[in-house]
Amino acid sequence: MTGTLYGLGIGPGDPELITLKALRLLRAAPVVAWPAPEQGDSLARSIVASHLPGGQTEIAIRMPLTVERFPAQAIYDGAATELAEHLSAGRDVAVLCEGDPFFYGSFMYLFARLAKRFPVEVVPGVSSLTACAAALGHPIAARNDVLTVIPAPLDDAAIAARLQATDAAAILKLGRHGPRIVALLQKLGLAGRAHYIERATMANQRILPLAEVDPQAIPYFAMILVHKRGEAHVTESNT
Amino acid sequence: MTGTLYGLGIGPGDPELITLKALRLLRAAPVVAWPAPEQGDSLARSIVASHLPGGQTEIAIRMPLTVERFPAQAIYDGAATELAEHLSAGRDVAVLCEGDPFFYGSFMYLFARLAKRFPVEVVPGVSSLTACAAALGHPIAARNDVLTVIPAPLDDAAIAARLQATDAAAILKLGRHGPRIVALLQKLGLAGRAHYIERATMANQRILPLAEVDPQAIPYFAMILVHKRGEAHVTESNT
Repeated sequence: MTGTLYGLGIGPGDPELITLKALRLLRAAPVVAWPAPEQGDSLARSIVASHLPGGQTEIAIRMPLTVERFPAQAIYDGAATELAEHLSAGRDVAVLCEGDPFFYGSFMYLFARLAKRFPVEVVPGVSSLTACAAALGHPIAARNDVLTVIPAPLDDAAIAARLQATDAAAILKLGRHGPRIVALLQKLGLAGRAHYIERATMANQRILPLAEVDPQAIPYFAMILVHKRGEAHVTESNT
Repeated sequence: MTGTLYGLGIGPGDPELITLKALRLLRAAPVVAWPAPEQGDSLARSIVASHLPGGQTEIAIRMPLTVERFPAQAIYDGAATELAEHLSAGRDVAVLCEGDPFFYGSFMYLFARLAKRFPVEVVPGVSSLTACAAALGHPIAARNDVLTVIPAPLDDAAIAARLQATDAAAILKLGRHGPRIVALLQKLGLAGRAHYIERATMANQRILPLAEVDPQAIPYFAMILVHKRGEAHVTESNT
């Protein structure tokens, strides 16, 4: 009997935004793996730290912040090999996934390497997308809105085209692309319809109108929500 | 002291996919309100039934399945008035929201009527979007994919344009629009890249390739996920 690989969505940051299911599977797993920077603490592990029963084998999957394609491949290869040893020995492995495992998550790289050899269960989690909307106090999408999720690394022309053809947008993976994205939204006349949310649901959450953002200081865990239809679309008192 | 209005995301259907936070606030609220059809049981209430402590005031917000704009407006007006009485009297009110309150949720209609008068807290939940991806066993979005969420009531030309300009798409609010959407995906040559997920994470969950779907029997709680880049985009063993 092989073990099962669990991809557990642990939510956007508030430890209370984990689901009962992810918590149950997390506590029951003999092996817990989590993404981490090359040095220092793992955000994913810190989210669940208060929930861990102790006594579990813990595996840090450490990834340099700036990573080339091939070193990253080697790191996921090595992690998959290590997890496969536990799975082959019959031990379940729970992989912690910030937000949701299948919404732009790095879990897919382990899934791609292990899903054909071992049983896998993915437990969906609260994504940063809806966590940011809740923090902002504004629906991310309403009625028959088209909602487009746009990764910031895409080029300006691609992003502008997607913004033109949608009602609402979430721009993610900001980080070093922040200054370019802020400038683009200003150029497109959308800055007034955009909000910036940093570390939604965490203790150090920040929410700002786009005009007040320092583009040079945008971390990876930030998102810009654009509501092209504006406030009245949601708050008008009819359906 | 007025009460607080809580919009609680209770997840996509599996009672275990509620968050610790929503569960805590749900159990503590003296008043719980939930959407329901004109007659019969509420899906939202059934999701949390096993979690309810008993002794709470329960308010059903009953909505006809086929509803005109103005009757719906009157129903939300009436519900807001009823909830406002409890809030004014200092009682917290928890409104159950399937999935996430601010991801195409009807909670926005109560929020629009009450947020200026009472404190409101929105607790994000696991959305049907990521629940469907987890059930399917395929990331909804990876790498720098653009993901577009498209309501099925939009016309064919609008939907086709959005599908053309994205890497991945989720088409929701299917129901009676199902036959038209299935035909459109076939016409666009995307049927082979589309999967149908019905009642994700519920006991009667069904997942089918689009070709095997009976378009006449598509319920409201169904979604079509389109992965234009295909399987290899995700499963190839590199980053």
